[in-house]
Amino acid sequence: MIHLGPVSNVVGVLLLIVGFMMLTAIPFSLYHGSQDTQALLLSSGLTIAAGLISWFYKFHSGAQVNKREGYLIVGLGWLSMVSFGALPYLFSGVLAHPIDALFETVSGMTTTGASVLNDIENLPKGILFWRSMTQWLGGMGIIVLTVAIFPLLGFGGIELFVAEAPGPTSDKLHPRIQVTAKRLWLLYVGITSLLCLLLWLEGMSFYEAINHALTTMATGGFSTRNASIAAFSSPLIQYTLIIFMFLAGTNYSMIYYMTRRKWTRVWNNEEFKTYLILVVLLAIAITPVVIQHGTNSWEQAFRDTLFQVVSLITTTGYVSADYTTWGTPVLLICVALLFLGASAGSTAGGIKIIRHLVFFKISINEFKKLLHPQAIIPLKLNGQPVSTRIAIHILVFLLLYLSTFFVGTLVVSMMGLDFETAVGAVATSLGNVGPGIGQVGPTDNFAWLSYDIKAVLSFLMLLGRLELFTLLVIFTPYFWKLN
Amino acid sequence: MIHLGPVSNVVGVLLLIVGFMMLTAIPFSLYHGSQDTQALLLSSGLTIAAGLISWFYKFHSGAQVNKREGYLIVGLGWLSMVSFGALPYLFSGVLAHPIDALFETVSGMTTTGASVLNDIENLPKGILFWRSMTQWLGGMGIIVLTVAIFPLLGFGGIELFVAEAPGPTSDKLHPRIQVTAKRLWLLYVGITSLLCLLLWLEGMSFYEAINHALTTMATGGFSTRNASIAAFSSPLIQYTLIIFMFLAGTNYSMIYYMTRRKWTRVWNNEEFKTYLILVVLLAIAITPVVIQHGTNSWEQAFRDTLFQVVSLITTTGYVSADYTTWGTPVLLICVALLFLGASAGSTAGGIKIIRHLVFFKISINEFKKLLHPQAIIPLKLNGQPVSTRIAIHILVFLLLYLSTFFVGTLVVSMMGLDFETAVGAVATSLGNVGPGIGQVGPTDNFAWLSYDIKAVLSFLMLLGRLELFTLLVIFTPYFWKLN
Repeated sequence: MIHLGPVSNVVGVLLLIVGFMMLTAIPFSLYHGSQDTQALLLSSGLTIAAGLISWFYKFHSGAQVNKREGYLIVGLGWLSMVSFGALPYLFSGVLAHPIDALFETVSGMTTTGASVLNDIENLPKGILFWRSMTQWLGGMGIIVLTVAIFPLLGFGGIELFVAEAPGPTSDKLHPRIQVTAKRLWLLYVGITSLLCLLLWLEGMSFYEAINHALTTMATGGFSTRNASIAAFSSPLIQYTLIIFMFLAGTNYSMIYYMTRRKWTRVWNNEEFKTYLILVVLLAIAITPVVIQHGTNSWEQAFRDTLFQVVSLITTTGYVSADYTTWGTPVLLICVALLFLGASAGSTAGGIKIIRHLVFFKISINEFKKLLHPQAIIPLKLNGQPVSTRIAIHILVFLLLYLSTFFVGTLVVSMMGLDFETAVGAVATSLGNVGPGIGQVGPTDNFAWLSYDIKAVLSFLMLLGRLELFTLLVIFTPYFWKLN
Repeated sequence: MIHLGPVSNVVGVLLLIVGFMMLTAIPFSLYHGSQDTQALLLSSGLTIAAGLISWFYKFHSGAQVNKREGYLIVGLGWLSMVSFGALPYLFSGVLAHPIDALFETVSGMTTTGASVLNDIENLPKGILFWRSMTQWLGGMGIIVLTVAIFPLLGFGGIELFVAEAPGPTSDKLHPRIQVTAKRLWLLYVGITSLLCLLLWLEGMSFYEAINHALTTMATGGFSTRNASIAAFSSPLIQYTLIIFMFLAGTNYSMIYYMTRRKWTRVWNNEEFKTYLILVVLLAIAITPVVIQHGTNSWEQAFRDTLFQVVSLITTTGYVSADYTTWGTPVLLICVALLFLGASAGSTAGGIKIIRHLVFFKISINEFKKLLHPQAIIPLKLNGQPVSTRIAIHILVFLLLYLSTFFVGTLVVSMMGLDFETAVGAVATSLGNVGPGIGQVGPTDNFAWLSYDIKAVLSFLMLLGRLELFTLLVIFTPYFWKLN
């Protein structure tokens, strides 16, 4: 049977975090004299109250967390956080319809960055800050989840951190989780502060600097400007964002090694190496095409290309130039980037490079086996063997991801989207990127879509963020069978 | 080292078959008094001569066929057959450019059915018959290949005929192959003759009946009419074709059991059951949409829907109605059907239902394992266990197929195709279907494409027909390493 005590308990803690973090928007609301202070206070109060009730409910149940409760915590936790996170939009009147408010919050907390807001620059400054904060919170949540909690569920971790994972040894929380989580926190807060400082020094207002620092490190992509990063023409700011987006898409274990100057360890990591090489190669390959399409200087063409490649590959979704005007081949590469994802254990969404790498290696082995069927060819990643079980899990994940993409595209096209827009909207939602192609391209937003389409896309953002299995398993009959 | 003796030998036999089969077009050429008799005789003579030379070359080498020679035979065999098969188009002047002639022949022998000919009804009747015959030959070739030869290469067979395959026990040709191949031949010839007779009785001319019988049983889809099957308004003819297309997409082992009236064995076959249910469900689901889009009677809407579902799922590619006018959701389902494929061991191209089934079953097991990581859950198909090795091979095939689709789409879009046309052209070529979407839809043809695009699509047709691995392995460095 399922113990609801610990589930309710953890969900309570998550709501308390959300409620208290809402208060960080108050100073900006007061400073800018925007009319959203009351809405934020009310939302915060309600969220904290709900958090306390949920936290105290069956506080002393003493039950242990097993796998099923783990999945329920993740599922219900995200559901509660996005529901209460949507309150400021509703109470301030910025978004009148609950589905719109939910969409914006889901897009925030899943670090997607797709928006249903038309005129961002005229929003009350407190709400706008909360919008950026939802991404930063979501980004942090996902790092803790993938690096510290998934491995304990015997999931995600075993798959993604082959070399690092403690493996599914225990259903109880391991003491290591606290050390790991604390270390990640410090890194995340530290890099965000550093980026905020840099952007401020480079000419952004403090308000804009902190907002963009929050949404960059979350690979979220919400901006405070209607034109996204294209509004900041300073090359310095754009290059700074490129570097920090790249960093945000890096496995936090690698960032930790970087701070300890263990460069060999970073360079020997196959996922990091592939990630770096891919970004450089794509930028070099696409720049000439951008020049052909009328960008004046080589520097700007290279910067625009590099910016969009990094923005899409890290699933940030900032826009410094409209990649849909660079011709069909570049458009297709951009669509492919929606499926790539950056590193596992970062805030990036999408499939993640490590899974593509494993697929690539398995394929090569399959070709070798065609000629030498009796040969036993071990599968290795970073010098460590990858078990058949993990190999199958990754292959199934890849196919399940593509199947979800297809079913999602079919569903939203039934709801009225044209072929290209449907493909773009679903790929960008599932990959937690932000902009798509067609009528949800980099210069459009999602406001014009119908509510049923927005609901489907919100679900797809959550599915992508929770790596499919974690959320889908709750909907299987096996989950609800007593054992 | 690679023994070229047996390779040259088998390629010679294949060319002899092609050369002699060209002669079957002569009676039609003479009867209709078309101006292509000389072209056919010359092509046949050249092909037979080349076949004899290749056959006698190192005839007495006595070397055994190992795996590498097996792959070379398949690869070079197809290459030679399509090259010589293209001669009648060139010599008769029907197609002036070698790439066009090759495209038409590859499209024929891979049973795809995509055409670069604009006005089919005005072609010389001998050439037109040869065009249908290339499909019938290709269809037969592929059945013999997948049912009788792939299993001996320890490939395809082990994967596709889990329950039936003898397994990779020997590198030498098994005596069973001759029995199996003969049985298949008889069935194929028998059903084709039966269909020809039926179509003739139902009102087609004998010439049209034999052409459509040949291309139906090959799941090829070449027609003698510009409007394809839409030119034959008789419901009787259309229902007959639906039934025989369905049969052509059925595993020939199942057809053999049907002739022996072993109905339980047929019904218990999971792939056949899925195939049948899928066709019925899709036809029922899409019919109301077709009514909405303006088809007058329920009967015609149902017939049009069923026809197109069966035509696409079996990768035949006949057109009785324009499915691109039925709205985006139906269009997406049609695109999905390009990826489905009918049964393994039939003449149908594409991925094949059995692989989708295995993926589906593995996915369910993965969800179960999330909750019960220690549980050992066997994977079964038709009551027989499927080994981990085969499971991985199938998953890799699926992903490799989708990767090839993506790379192909990227390449042809670089050559100038728009997004939708690129997707349609590549999906339909790789799946050996025929019509696509966009500007290569069911009422268009492939004549207007540039020669580089035609070359890429021809390669994709061969890749799809030879189930990727068989052809791709020749391009790997491992293949050419001495061992």
